[in-house]
Amino acid sequence: MISQRLTIIGVGLIGGSLARSLRDAGACGEVVGYGRDTGNLKLAVDLGVIDRFETDLRAAVFGADLVVLAVPLKAMDDIFAGLAGHLGRDTVVTDVGSAKARVVDAARRLGDAFTRFVPGHPIAGTEKTGVGAAISGLFERHYTILTPVDETEEGAVARVRRMWERVGAKVVSMDLEHHDRILADTSHLPHMLAFALVDYLARQDGEEPFRYAAGGFTDFTRIASSDPVMWRDICLANGPAIRGALKGYMDTLARIDRNLADGDGEALLKCFSDAKQRRDRFLSEREAAMGKAQNGVTTK
Amino acid sequence: MISQRLTIIGVGLIGGSLARSLRDAGACGEVVGYGRDTGNLKLAVDLGVIDRFETDLRAAVFGADLVVLAVPLKAMDDIFAGLAGHLGRDTVVTDVGSAKARVVDAARRLGDAFTRFVPGHPIAGTEKTGVGAAISGLFERHYTILTPVDETEEGAVARVRRMWERVGAKVVSMDLEHHDRILADTSHLPHMLAFALVDYLARQDGEEPFRYAAGGFTDFTRIASSDPVMWRDICLANGPAIRGALKGYMDTLARIDRNLADGDGEALLKCFSDAKQRRDRFLSEREAAMGKAQNGVTTK
Repeated sequence: MISQRLTIIGVGLIGGSLARSLRDAGACGEVVGYGRDTGNLKLAVDLGVIDRFETDLRAAVFGADLVVLAVPLKAMDDIFAGLAGHLGRDTVVTDVGSAKARVVDAARRLGDAFTRFVPGHPIAGTEKTGVGAAISGLFERHYTILTPVDETEEGAVARVRRMWERVGAKVVSMDLEHHDRILADTSHLPHMLAFALVDYLARQDGEEPFRYAAGGFTDFTRIASSDPVMWRDICLANGPAIRGALKGYMDTLARIDRNLADGDGEALLKCFSDAKQRRDRFLSEREAAMGKAQNGVTTK
Repeated sequence: MISQRLTIIGVGLIGGSLARSLRDAGACGEVVGYGRDTGNLKLAVDLGVIDRFETDLRAAVFGADLVVLAVPLKAMDDIFAGLAGHLGRDTVVTDVGSAKARVVDAARRLGDAFTRFVPGHPIAGTEKTGVGAAISGLFERHYTILTPVDETEEGAVARVRRMWERVGAKVVSMDLEHHDRILADTSHLPHMLAFALVDYLARQDGEEPFRYAAGGFTDFTRIASSDPVMWRDICLANGPAIRGALKGYMDTLARIDRNLADGDGEALLKCFSDAKQRRDRFLSEREAAMGKAQNGVTTK
Protein backbone atom coordinates (compact mmCIF):
# COMPACT_ATOMS: atom_id res chain seq x y z
CA MET A 1 0.00 0.00 0.00
CA ILE A 2 1.51 3.31 -1.11
CA SER A 3 -0.87 5.48 0.90
CA GLN A 4 -3.60 4.97 3.48
CA ARG A 5 -5.05 8.38 2.76
CA LEU A 6 -4.03 10.17 -0.41
CA THR A 7 -4.98 13.78 -1.06
CA ILE A 8 -5.07 14.99 -4.65
CA ILE A 9 -4.86 18.79 -4.90
CA GLY A 10 -6.37 19.57 -8.28
CA VAL A 11 -8.43 16.69 -9.68
CA GLY A 12 -7.94 17.20 -13.41
CA LEU A 13 -6.48 15.05 -16.15
CA ILE A 14 -3.19 14.28 -14.39
CA GLY A 15 -4.38 14.23 -10.77
CA GLY A 16 -7.43 12.22 -11.73
CA SER A 17 -5.47 9.75 -13.86
CA LEU A 18 -2.98 9.21 -11.02
CA ALA A 19 -5.82 8.55 -8.53
CA ARG A 20 -7.53 6.16 -10.93
CA SER A 21 -4.29 4.32 -11.69
CA LEU A 22 -3.34 3.96 -7.99
CA ARG A 23 -6.82 2.69 -7.12
CA ASP A 24 -6.80 0.19 -9.97
CA ALA A 25 -3.41 -1.01 -8.69
CA GLY A 26 -4.90 -1.43 -5.20
CA ALA A 27 -2.15 0.90 -3.99
CA CYS A 28 -4.13 3.34 -1.87
CA GLY A 29 -6.84 3.52 0.75
CA GLU A 30 -9.02 6.61 0.85
CA VAL A 31 -8.58 9.25 -1.84
CA VAL A 32 -9.56 12.82 -0.95
CA GLY A 33 -9.84 15.50 -3.61
CA TYR A 34 -9.35 19.23 -3.19
CA GLY A 35 -10.17 21.98 -5.65
CA ARG A 36 -12.10 25.16 -6.14
CA ASP A 37 -14.66 23.89 -8.65
CA THR A 38 -17.17 21.80 -6.68
CA GLY A 39 -18.89 20.75 -9.91
CA ASN A 40 -15.65 19.13 -11.05
CA LEU A 41 -15.09 17.54 -7.63
CA LYS A 42 -18.62 16.08 -7.61
CA LEU A 43 -17.98 14.68 -11.07
CA ALA A 44 -14.75 13.13 -9.77
CA VAL A 45 -16.71 11.39 -6.99
CA ASP A 46 -19.39 10.24 -9.47
CA LEU A 47 -16.70 8.86 -11.77
CA GLY A 48 -15.16 6.99 -8.85
CA VAL A 49 -11.87 8.86 -9.17
CA ILE A 50 -11.94 10.09 -5.56
CA ASP A 51 -13.88 8.95 -2.48
CA ARG A 52 -14.79 12.40 -1.19
CA PHE A 53 -13.73 16.00 -1.54
CA GLU A 54 -13.04 19.02 0.61
CA THR A 55 -13.00 22.66 -0.42
CA ASP A 56 -11.00 23.67 2.64
CA LEU A 57 -7.31 22.94 2.12
CA ARG A 58 -6.54 22.05 5.74
CA ALA A 59 -9.48 19.68 5.93
CA ALA A 60 -8.39 18.13 2.64
CA VAL A 61 -4.92 17.18 3.88
CA PHE A 62 -5.97 16.26 7.43
CA GLY A 63 -4.72 12.75 8.14
CA ALA A 64 -3.22 12.36 4.66
CA ASP A 65 0.12 10.54 4.47
CA LEU A 66 0.66 11.50 0.84
CA VAL A 67 -0.31 14.73 -0.91
CA VAL A 68 -0.05 15.24 -4.67
CA LEU A 69 -0.25 18.74 -6.14
CA ALA A 70 -1.67 18.62 -9.66
CA VAL A 71 -2.73 22.24 -10.07
CA PRO A 72 -1.44 24.79 -12.61
CA LEU A 73 1.98 26.18 -11.68
CA LYS A 74 0.67 29.60 -10.74
CA ALA A 75 -1.76 28.15 -8.20
CA MET A 76 1.02 26.30 -6.38
CA ASP A 77 2.30 29.32 -4.41
CA ASP A 78 -0.92 29.65 -2.46
CA ILE A 79 -1.25 25.91 -1.98
CA PHE A 80 2.26 25.54 -0.54
CA ALA A 81 1.72 28.55 1.73
CA GLY A 82 -1.62 27.11 2.85
CA LEU A 83 -0.12 23.70 3.61
CA ALA A 84 2.69 25.07 5.83
CA GLY A 85 2.17 23.91 9.40
CA HIS A 86 -0.81 21.73 8.51
CA LEU A 87 0.84 18.53 7.34
CA GLY A 88 1.44 15.41 9.41
CA ARG A 89 5.05 14.96 10.49
CA ASP A 90 5.55 12.03 8.10
CA THR A 91 3.38 13.31 5.29
CA VAL A 92 5.14 13.31 1.93
CA VAL A 93 4.23 15.93 -0.67
CA THR A 94 4.92 15.76 -4.39
CA ASP A 95 3.76 17.57 -7.53
CA VAL A 96 3.44 17.04 -11.28
CA GLY A 97 4.47 20.47 -12.57
CA SER A 98 6.53 20.74 -15.73
CA ALA A 99 8.94 23.52 -14.61
CA LYS A 100 10.79 22.31 -11.55
CA ALA A 101 12.95 25.30 -10.54
CA ARG A 102 9.81 27.40 -10.18
CA VAL A 103 7.99 24.71 -8.18
CA VAL A 104 10.91 24.15 -5.82
CA ASP A 105 11.09 27.90 -5.14
CA ALA A 106 7.40 27.93 -4.30
CA ALA A 107 7.68 24.77 -2.20
CA ARG A 108 10.08 26.47 0.22
CA ARG A 109 6.94 28.05 1.65
CA LEU A 110 6.22 24.66 3.19
CA GLY A 111 8.75 25.52 5.89
CA ASP A 112 9.84 22.44 7.86
CA ALA A 113 7.90 20.16 5.56
CA PHE A 114 10.03 21.23 2.57
CA THR A 115 12.42 18.34 3.23
CA ARG A 116 9.55 15.92 2.56
CA PHE A 117 8.58 17.60 -0.72
CA VAL A 118 9.67 15.62 -3.78
CA PRO A 119 9.49 17.56 -7.06
CA GLY A 120 8.14 15.28 -9.76
CA HIS A 121 7.03 15.40 -13.38
CA PRO A 122 5.26 12.60 -15.25
CA ILE A 123 5.95 12.93 -18.99
CA ALA A 124 2.45 12.01 -20.06
CA GLY A 125 -0.73 13.76 -20.93
CA THR A 126 -3.07 14.61 -23.73
CA GLU A 127 -4.33 17.93 -25.01
CA LYS A 128 -7.54 17.25 -23.12
CA THR A 129 -8.19 18.63 -19.66
CA GLY A 130 -10.44 17.85 -16.74
CA VAL A 131 -11.26 14.82 -14.69
CA GLY A 132 -13.61 13.55 -17.40
CA ALA A 133 -10.54 12.79 -19.52
CA ALA A 134 -8.70 11.03 -16.67
CA ILE A 135 -7.75 7.45 -17.46
CA SER A 136 -6.14 4.60 -15.64
CA GLY A 137 -2.88 3.61 -17.32
CA LEU A 138 -1.94 7.10 -18.51
CA PHE A 139 1.53 6.80 -16.98
CA GLU A 140 2.29 3.20 -17.91
CA ARG A 141 5.69 2.88 -19.59
CA HIS A 142 6.08 6.67 -19.56
CA TYR A 143 8.94 8.41 -17.83
CA THR A 144 8.41 10.25 -14.57
CA ILE A 145 11.28 12.55 -13.69
CA LEU A 146 12.05 13.37 -10.05
CA THR A 147 14.28 16.35 -9.27
CA PRO A 148 15.08 16.19 -5.53
CA VAL A 149 17.28 18.95 -4.08
CA ASP A 150 19.96 18.69 -1.38
CA GLU A 151 17.44 19.10 1.44
CA THR A 152 15.03 16.44 0.18
CA GLU A 153 14.80 13.39 2.48
CA GLU A 154 15.79 10.15 0.81
CA GLY A 155 12.87 8.29 2.34
CA ALA A 156 10.43 10.75 0.78
CA VAL A 157 12.06 10.31 -2.63
CA ALA A 158 11.88 6.53 -2.30
CA ARG A 159 8.19 6.70 -1.47
CA VAL A 160 7.29 8.92 -4.42
CA ARG A 161 9.40 6.70 -6.67
CA ARG A 162 7.41 3.66 -5.50
CA MET A 163 4.15 5.48 -6.14
CA TRP A 164 5.04 6.15 -9.78
CA GLU A 165 6.43 2.67 -10.27
CA ARG A 166 3.13 1.20 -9.03
CA VAL A 167 1.29 2.95 -11.87
CA GLY A 168 3.80 1.59 -14.37
CA ALA A 169 6.02 4.64 -14.88
CA LYS A 170 9.77 4.47 -15.55
CA VAL A 171 11.23 6.72 -12.85
CA VAL A 172 14.47 8.67 -13.27
CA SER A 173 16.08 11.37 -11.14
CA MET A 174 17.96 14.38 -12.47
CA ASP A 175 19.11 17.85 -11.60
CA LEU A 176 16.23 20.31 -11.80
CA GLU A 177 17.92 22.78 -14.15
CA HIS A 178 18.66 19.91 -16.49
CA HIS A 179 15.02 18.81 -16.34
CA ASP A 180 13.83 22.32 -17.14
CA ARG A 181 16.11 22.57 -20.15
CA ILE A 182 15.14 19.15 -21.51
CA LEU A 183 11.45 19.95 -21.10
CA ALA A 184 11.88 23.35 -22.74
CA ASP A 185 13.36 21.57 -25.77
CA THR A 186 11.00 18.60 -26.05
CA SER A 187 7.69 19.94 -24.80
CA HIS A 188 7.58 23.68 -24.18
CA LEU A 189 9.21 24.62 -27.50
CA PRO A 190 6.89 22.42 -29.62
CA HIS A 191 3.89 23.97 -27.88
CA MET A 192 5.16 27.49 -28.64
CA LEU A 193 5.68 26.45 -32.27
CA ALA A 194 2.16 25.07 -32.59
CA PHE A 195 0.52 28.10 -30.96
CA ALA A 196 2.65 30.37 -33.17
CA LEU A 197 1.66 28.55 -36.36
CA VAL A 198 -2.05 28.93 -35.69
CA ASP A 199 -1.45 32.57 -34.68
CA TYR A 200 0.51 33.24 -37.88
CA LEU A 201 -2.09 31.58 -40.13
CA ALA A 202 -4.98 33.37 -38.44
CA ARG A 203 -3.34 36.68 -39.44
CA GLN A 204 -3.21 35.70 -43.13
CA ASP A 205 -6.13 35.56 -45.60
CA GLY A 206 -9.01 35.02 -43.21
CA GLU A 207 -10.53 31.56 -43.55
CA GLU A 208 -8.63 30.37 -46.58
CA PRO A 209 -5.43 28.96 -45.03
CA PHE A 210 -7.47 26.81 -42.68
CA ARG A 211 -9.76 25.60 -45.48
CA TYR A 212 -6.87 24.09 -47.40
CA ALA A 213 -4.89 22.81 -44.45
CA ALA A 214 -4.36 19.07 -44.72
CA GLY A 215 -3.78 16.22 -42.29
CA GLY A 216 -0.21 17.26 -41.52
CA PHE A 217 -1.42 20.58 -40.20
CA THR A 218 -4.04 18.85 -38.03
CA ASP A 219 -1.43 16.71 -36.30
CA PHE A 220 1.11 19.50 -36.14
CA THR A 221 -1.25 21.81 -34.30
CA ARG A 222 -2.96 19.28 -32.02
CA ILE A 223 -1.01 20.64 -29.07
CA ALA A 224 -2.25 24.17 -29.88
CA SER A 225 -5.55 22.92 -28.43
CA SER A 226 -3.90 22.57 -25.01
CA ASP A 227 -5.02 24.58 -21.98
CA PRO A 228 -3.87 28.21 -22.51
CA VAL A 229 -3.75 29.02 -18.78
CA MET A 230 -1.51 26.05 -18.08
CA TRP A 231 0.78 27.12 -20.89
CA ARG A 232 0.93 30.74 -19.82
CA ASP A 233 1.98 29.50 -16.38
CA ILE A 234 4.63 27.19 -17.83
CA CYS A 235 5.98 30.12 -19.87
CA LEU A 236 6.19 32.36 -16.83
CA ALA A 237 7.75 29.55 -14.78
CA ASN A 238 10.34 28.37 -17.30
CA GLY A 239 10.86 31.50 -19.42
CA PRO A 240 14.67 31.53 -19.62
CA ALA A 241 14.95 27.87 -20.68
CA ILE A 242 12.14 28.28 -23.23
CA ARG A 243 13.84 31.39 -24.63
CA GLY A 244 17.06 29.40 -24.95
CA ALA A 245 15.24 26.70 -26.90
CA LEU A 246 13.50 29.30 -29.08
CA LYS A 247 16.83 30.90 -29.90
CA GLY A 248 18.41 27.59 -30.92
CA TYR A 249 15.35 26.75 -33.00
CA MET A 250 15.24 30.13 -34.72
CA ASP A 251 18.91 29.70 -35.63
CA THR A 252 17.93 26.44 -37.33
CA LEU A 253 15.10 28.14 -39.22
CA ALA A 254 17.47 30.94 -40.25
CA ARG A 255 19.86 28.31 -41.65
CA ILE A 256 17.03 26.71 -43.66
CA ASP A 257 16.03 30.17 -44.88
CA ARG A 258 19.59 30.78 -46.11
CA ASN A 259 19.55 27.41 -47.88
CA LEU A 260 16.28 28.44 -49.57
CA ALA A 261 17.74 31.82 -50.57
CA ASP A 262 20.80 30.09 -52.03
CA GLY A 263 18.74 27.37 -53.71
CA ASP A 264 21.07 24.96 -51.91
CA GLY A 265 19.27 21.69 -52.61
CA GLU A 266 22.10 19.61 -51.22
CA ALA A 267 21.99 21.25 -47.78
CA LEU A 268 18.19 21.05 -47.68
CA LEU A 269 18.21 17.39 -48.68
CA LYS A 270 20.77 16.58 -45.96
CA CYS A 271 18.74 18.43 -43.33
CA PHE A 272 15.49 16.70 -44.33
CA SER A 273 17.10 13.24 -44.71
CA ASP A 274 18.83 13.43 -41.33
CA ALA A 275 15.63 14.64 -39.70
CA LYS A 276 13.54 11.89 -41.29
CA GLN A 277 16.06 9.24 -40.28
CA ARG A 278 16.22 10.53 -36.69
CA ARG A 279 12.44 10.84 -36.42
CA ASP A 280 11.84 7.37 -37.87
CA ARG A 281 14.33 5.99 -35.35
CA PHE A 282 12.63 7.91 -32.53
CA LEU A 283 9.31 6.37 -33.53
CA SER A 284 10.56 2.79 -33.69
CA GLU A 285 12.39 3.16 -30.37
CA ARG A 286 9.28 4.65 -28.87
CA GLU A 287 7.07 1.89 -30.20
CA ALA A 288 9.48 -0.73 -28.91
CA ALA A 289 9.58 0.94 -25.48
CA MET A 290 5.87 1.57 -25.13
CA GLY A 291 4.26 -1.28 -26.98
CA LYS A 292 2.08 -0.38 -29.92
CA ALA A 293 -1.20 -0.56 -28.04
CA GLN A 294 -0.02 1.65 -25.20
CA ASN A 295 1.20 4.21 -27.68
CA GLY A 296 -2.37 5.31 -28.29
CA VAL A 297 -2.74 6.57 -24.75
CA THR A 298 -0.72 9.71 -25.34
CA THR A 299 -1.26 10.30 -29.00
CA LYS A 300 -5.05 10.46 -28.85
CA MET B 1 -16.11 7.33 -68.50
CA ILE B 2 -13.41 9.88 -67.76
CA SER B 3 -10.72 8.14 -69.80
CA GLN B 4 -10.49 5.20 -72.20
CA ARG B 5 -6.77 4.93 -71.68
CA LEU B 6 -5.20 6.71 -68.73
CA THR B 7 -1.44 7.00 -68.30
CA ILE B 8 -0.04 7.59 -64.83
CA ILE B 9 3.50 9.00 -64.92
CA GLY B 10 4.91 8.09 -61.52
CA VAL B 11 2.93 5.34 -59.79
CA GLY B 12 3.50 6.27 -56.13
CA LEU B 13 1.16 7.20 -53.32
CA ILE B 14 -0.72 9.93 -55.20
CA GLY B 15 -0.60 8.50 -58.72
CA GLY B 16 -1.48 5.06 -57.41
CA SER B 17 -4.31 6.30 -55.22
CA LEU B 18 -5.79 8.26 -58.14
CA ALA B 19 -5.65 5.18 -60.40
CA ARG B 20 -7.23 3.01 -57.71
CA SER B 21 -9.96 5.55 -56.99
CA LEU B 22 -10.83 6.03 -60.67
CA ARG B 23 -10.97 2.28 -61.26
CA ASP B 24 -13.17 1.75 -58.24
CA ALA B 25 -15.45 4.47 -59.58
CA GLY B 26 -15.61 2.66 -62.94
CA ALA B 27 -14.35 5.88 -64.49
CA CYS B 28 -11.55 4.60 -66.68
CA GLY B 29 -10.66 1.90 -69.16
CA GLU B 30 -7.06 0.79 -69.40
CA VAL B 31 -4.53 2.24 -66.96
CA VAL B 32 -0.90 2.37 -68.08
CA GLY B 33 1.89 3.14 -65.64
CA TYR B 34 5.22 4.76 -66.41
CA GLY B 35 8.23 5.03 -64.13
CA ARG B 36 11.91 4.24 -63.81
CA ASP B 37 11.66 1.64 -61.07
CA THR B 38 10.39 -1.56 -62.71
CA GLY B 39 10.12 -3.27 -59.31
CA ASN B 40 7.65 -0.62 -58.23
CA LEU B 41 5.75 -0.85 -61.52
CA LYS B 42 5.49 -4.65 -61.24
CA LEU B 43 4.17 -4.22 -57.70
CA ALA B 44 1.61 -1.74 -59.03
CA VAL B 45 0.41 -4.36 -61.55
CA ASP B 46 0.33 -7.06 -58.85
CA LEU B 47 -1.70 -4.77 -56.59
CA GLY B 48 -4.15 -4.13 -59.44
CA VAL B 49 -3.40 -0.41 -59.44
CA ILE B 50 -2.42 -0.39 -63.15
CA ASP B 51 -3.09 -2.82 -66.02
CA ARG B 52 0.38 -2.68 -67.51
CA PHE B 53 3.48 -0.53 -67.55
CA GLU B 54 5.97 0.92 -69.97
CA THR B 55 9.48 2.15 -69.26
CA ASP B 56 9.59 4.13 -72.49
CA LEU B 57 7.77 7.43 -72.12
CA ARG B 58 6.46 7.59 -75.68
CA ALA B 59 5.14 4.04 -75.50
CA ALA B 60 3.52 4.85 -72.16
CA VAL B 61 1.44 7.72 -73.53
CA PHE B 62 0.69 6.17 -76.93
CA GLY B 63 -3.07 6.21 -77.40
CA ALA B 64 -3.72 7.77 -74.00
CA ASP B 65 -6.48 10.37 -73.84
CA LEU B 66 -5.51 11.48 -70.33
CA VAL B 67 -2.02 11.70 -68.81
CA VAL B 68 -1.41 12.41 -65.12
CA LEU B 69 2.05 13.45 -63.93
CA ALA B 70 2.61 12.36 -60.34
CA VAL B 71 6.40 12.52 -60.17
CA PRO B 72 8.56 14.74 -57.92
CA LEU B 73 8.74 18.32 -59.15
CA LYS B 74 12.32 18.09 -60.30
CA ALA B 75 11.57 15.13 -62.57
CA MET B 76 8.82 17.04 -64.39
CA ASP B 77 11.15 19.04 -66.66
CA ASP B 78 12.37 15.95 -68.46
CA ILE B 79 8.90 14.41 -68.61
CA PHE B 80 7.36 17.49 -70.21
CA ALA B 81 10.22 17.74 -72.68
CA GLY B 82 9.85 14.06 -73.47
CA LEU B 83 6.11 14.35 -74.06
CA ALA B 84 6.37 17.26 -76.54
CA GLY B 85 5.22 16.11 -79.97
CA HIS B 86 4.15 12.68 -78.74
CA LEU B 87 0.66 13.33 -77.39
CA GLY B 88 -2.59 12.77 -79.23
CA ARG B 89 -4.25 15.95 -80.47
CA ASP B 90 -7.03 15.69 -77.87
CA THR B 91 -4.94 14.25 -75.06
CA VAL B 92 -5.30 16.20 -71.81
CA VAL B 93 -2.37 16.36 -69.39
CA THR B 94 -2.51 17.25 -65.71
CA ASP B 95 -0.25 16.99 -62.69
CA VAL B 96 -0.42 16.82 -58.89
CA GLY B 97 2.59 18.97 -57.92
CA SER B 98 2.37 21.26 -54.91
CA ALA B 99 4.18 24.30 -56.39
CA LYS B 100 2.26 25.42 -59.44
CA ALA B 101 4.35 28.32 -60.82
CA ARG B 102 7.31 25.98 -61.18
CA VAL B 103 5.22 23.26 -62.86
CA VAL B 104 3.60 25.66 -65.32
CA ASP B 105 7.06 26.96 -66.32
CA ALA B 106 8.20 23.41 -66.95
CA ALA B 107 5.00 22.51 -68.79
CA ARG B 108 5.68 25.12 -71.46
CA ARG B 109 8.11 22.55 -72.87
CA LEU B 110 5.01 20.68 -74.07
CA GLY B 111 4.86 23.14 -76.97
CA ASP B 112 1.48 23.03 -78.74
CA ALA B 113 0.07 20.66 -76.12
CA PHE B 114 0.61 23.25 -73.37
CA THR B 115 -2.93 24.54 -73.92
CA ARG B 116 -4.28 21.14 -72.90
CA PHE B 117 -2.17 21.00 -69.73
CA VAL B 118 -4.21 21.67 -66.58
CA PRO B 119 -2.11 22.35 -63.47
CA GLY B 120 -3.67 20.59 -60.50
CA HIS B 121 -2.98 19.86 -56.86
CA PRO B 122 -4.95 17.46 -54.66
CA ILE B 123 -4.63 18.52 -51.00
CA ALA B 124 -4.34 14.99 -49.67
CA GLY B 125 -1.61 12.61 -48.76
CA THR B 126 0.11 10.88 -45.92
CA GLU B 127 3.74 10.85 -44.86
CA LYS B 128 3.99 7.45 -46.51
CA THR B 129 5.30 7.00 -50.01
CA GLY B 130 5.12 4.38 -52.73
CA VAL B 131 2.38 2.48 -54.48
CA GLY B 132 2.09 0.08 -51.53
CA ALA B 133 0.53 2.92 -49.54
CA ALA B 134 -1.90 3.88 -52.35
CA ILE B 135 -5.54 3.71 -51.32
CA SER B 136 -8.87 4.20 -52.98
CA GLY B 137 -10.74 7.10 -51.41
CA LEU B 138 -7.66 9.20 -50.57
CA PHE B 139 -9.15 12.26 -52.26
CA GLU B 140 -12.73 11.92 -51.06
CA ARG B 141 -14.02 15.18 -49.54
CA HIS B 142 -10.56 16.72 -49.92
CA TYR B 143 -9.93 19.84 -51.95
CA THR B 144 -8.22 19.64 -55.30
CA ILE B 145 -7.00 23.01 -56.54
CA LEU B 146 -6.70 23.71 -60.29
CA THR B 147 -4.63 26.70 -61.44
CA PRO B 148 -5.28 27.10 -65.17
CA VAL B 149 -3.46 29.93 -66.98
CA ASP B 150 -4.71 32.16 -69.79
CA GLU B 151 -3.70 29.69 -72.49
CA THR B 152 -5.39 26.67 -70.87
CA GLU B 153 -8.33 25.31 -72.90
CA GLU B 154 -11.63 25.38 -71.03
CA GLY B 155 -12.53 21.92 -72.24
CA ALA B 156 -9.34 20.50 -70.74
CA VAL B 157 -10.06 22.18 -67.40
CA ALA B 158 -13.60 20.78 -67.41
CA ARG B 159 -12.31 17.28 -68.06
CA VAL B 160 -9.74 17.36 -65.24
CA ARG B 161 -12.36 18.84 -62.93
CA ARG B 162 -14.70 15.93 -63.74
CA MET B 163 -11.89 13.44 -63.06
CA TRP B 164 -11.33 14.79 -59.55
CA GLU B 165 -15.03 15.04 -58.88
CA ARG B 166 -15.46 11.37 -59.78
CA VAL B 167 -13.03 10.42 -57.00
CA GLY B 168 -14.96 12.57 -54.53
CA ALA B 169 -12.74 15.68 -54.41
CA LYS B 170 -14.04 19.21 -53.94
CA VAL B 171 -12.56 21.08 -56.89
CA VAL B 172 -11.73 24.79 -56.82
CA SER B 173 -9.80 27.00 -59.25
CA MET B 174 -7.48 29.82 -58.29
CA ASP B 175 -4.61 31.91 -59.51
CA LEU B 176 -1.35 29.97 -59.36
CA GLU B 177 0.59 32.54 -57.32
CA HIS B 178 -2.23 32.53 -54.79
CA HIS B 179 -2.10 28.73 -54.64
CA ASP B 180 1.64 28.76 -54.07
CA ARG B 181 1.36 31.25 -51.23
CA ILE B 182 -1.52 29.37 -49.52
CA LEU B 183 0.39 26.10 -49.78
CA ALA B 184 3.57 27.69 -48.46
CA ASP B 185 1.60 28.79 -45.39
CA THR B 186 -0.43 25.66 -44.74
CA SER B 187 1.81 22.83 -45.89
CA HIS B 188 5.35 23.84 -46.81
CA LEU B 189 5.92 25.97 -43.69
CA PRO B 190 4.70 23.25 -41.25
CA HIS B 191 7.02 20.76 -42.93
CA MET B 192 9.99 23.12 -42.55
CA LEU B 193 9.07 23.59 -38.88
CA ALA B 194 8.89 19.86 -38.23
CA PHE B 195 12.19 19.11 -40.02
CA ALA B 196 13.80 22.02 -38.13
CA LEU B 197 12.58 20.78 -34.75
CA VAL B 198 14.09 17.34 -35.22
CA ASP B 199 17.28 18.95 -36.56
CA TYR B 200 17.48 21.29 -33.54
CA LEU B 201 16.87 18.49 -31.02
CA ALA B 202 19.39 16.19 -32.67
CA ARG B 203 22.03 18.85 -32.04
CA GLN B 204 21.28 18.96 -28.29
CA ASP B 205 22.22 16.38 -25.66
CA GLY B 206 22.50 13.28 -27.81
CA GLU B 207 19.73 10.81 -27.11
CA GLU B 208 18.17 12.49 -24.11
CA PRO B 209 15.73 14.93 -25.72
CA PHE B 210 14.20 12.12 -27.76
CA ARG B 211 13.96 9.82 -24.73
CA TYR B 212 11.71 12.24 -22.87
CA ALA B 213 9.71 13.47 -25.84
CA ALA B 214 6.02 12.82 -25.28
CA GLY B 215 3.01 12.27 -27.51
CA GLY B 216 2.79 15.90 -28.57
CA PHE B 217 6.24 15.71 -30.07
CA THR B 218 5.31 12.52 -31.93
CA ASP B 219 2.36 14.18 -33.63
CA PHE B 220 4.20 17.42 -34.17
CA THR B 221 7.01 15.76 -36.05
CA ARG B 222 5.01 13.16 -38.00
CA ILE B 223 5.50 15.18 -41.18
CA ALA B 224 9.28 15.17 -40.60
CA SER B 225 9.06 11.54 -41.73
CA SER B 226 8.00 12.70 -45.21
CA ASP B 227 10.07 12.02 -48.32
CA PRO B 228 13.18 14.27 -48.17
CA VAL B 229 13.68 14.35 -51.96
CA MET B 230 10.11 15.47 -52.53
CA TRP B 231 10.57 18.23 -49.96
CA ARG B 232 13.87 19.41 -51.33
CA ASP B 233 12.16 19.72 -54.71
CA ILE B 234 9.22 21.63 -53.24
CA CYS B 235 11.69 23.98 -51.54
CA LEU B 236 13.56 24.63 -54.75
CA ALA B 237 10.29 25.06 -56.65
CA ASN B 238 8.49 27.36 -54.20
CA GLY B 239 11.40 28.99 -52.38
CA PRO B 240 10.25 32.64 -52.41
CA ALA B 241 6.76 31.84 -51.07
CA ILE B 242 8.19 29.53 -48.40
CA ARG B 243 10.68 32.22 -47.36
CA GLY B 244 7.80 34.68 -47.07
CA ALA B 245 5.94 32.26 -44.80
CA LEU B 246 9.08 31.61 -42.74
CA LYS B 247 9.58 35.33 -42.26
CA GLY B 248 6.03 35.89 -41.05
CA TYR B 249 6.30 32.90 -38.76
CA MET B 250 9.65 33.98 -37.30
CA ASP B 251 8.14 37.40 -36.59
CA THR B 252 5.46 35.60 -34.58
CA LEU B 253 8.09 33.62 -32.67
CA ALA B 254 10.05 36.81 -32.00
CA ARG B 255 6.89 38.37 -30.53
CA ILE B 256 6.38 35.36 -28.24
CA ASP B 257 10.05 35.59 -27.26
CA ARG B 258 9.57 39.26 -26.30
CA ASN B 259 6.50 38.32 -24.24
CA LEU B 260 8.62 35.70 -22.46
CA ALA B 261 11.41 38.21 -21.83
CA ASP B 262 8.89 40.70 -20.42
CA GLY B 263 7.08 38.03 -18.40
CA ASP B 264 3.94 39.32 -20.14
CA GLY B 265 1.45 36.67 -19.06
CA GLU B 266 -1.50 38.57 -20.45
CA ALA B 267 -0.11 38.71 -23.99
CA LEU B 268 0.91 35.03 -23.86
CA LEU B 269 -2.51 33.98 -22.57
CA LYS B 270 -4.24 35.92 -25.34
CA CYS B 271 -2.00 34.37 -27.99
CA PHE B 272 -2.55 30.82 -26.67
CA SER B 273 -6.31 31.30 -26.10
CA ASP B 274 -6.89 32.72 -29.57
CA ALA B 275 -4.82 29.92 -31.11
CA LYS B 276 -6.67 27.22 -29.18
CA GLN B 277 -10.03 28.69 -30.11
CA ARG B 278 -9.08 28.94 -33.79
CA ARG B 279 -7.60 25.45 -33.84
CA ASP B 280 -10.61 23.91 -32.11
CA ARG B 281 -12.88 25.62 -34.65
CA PHE B 282 -10.67 24.37 -37.49
CA LEU B 283 -11.02 20.85 -36.17
CA SER B 284 -14.78 20.90 -35.79
CA GLU B 285 -15.21 22.48 -39.24
CA ARG B 286 -12.91 19.86 -40.67
CA GLU B 287 -14.75 17.03 -38.99
CA ALA B 288 -18.07 18.38 -40.19
CA ALA B 289 -16.73 18.72 -43.75
CA MET B 290 -14.96 15.38 -43.93
CA GLY B 291 -17.01 13.11 -41.74
CA LYS B 292 -15.29 11.55 -38.77
CA ALA B 293 -14.51 8.24 -40.47
CA GLN B 294 -12.99 9.82 -43.53
CA ASN B 295 -10.77 11.97 -41.34
CA GLY B 296 -8.58 8.98 -40.63
CA VAL B 297 -7.43 8.78 -44.21
CA THR B 298 -5.12 11.75 -43.96
CA THR B 299 -4.22 11.73 -40.32
CA LYS B 300 -2.81 8.21 -40.17
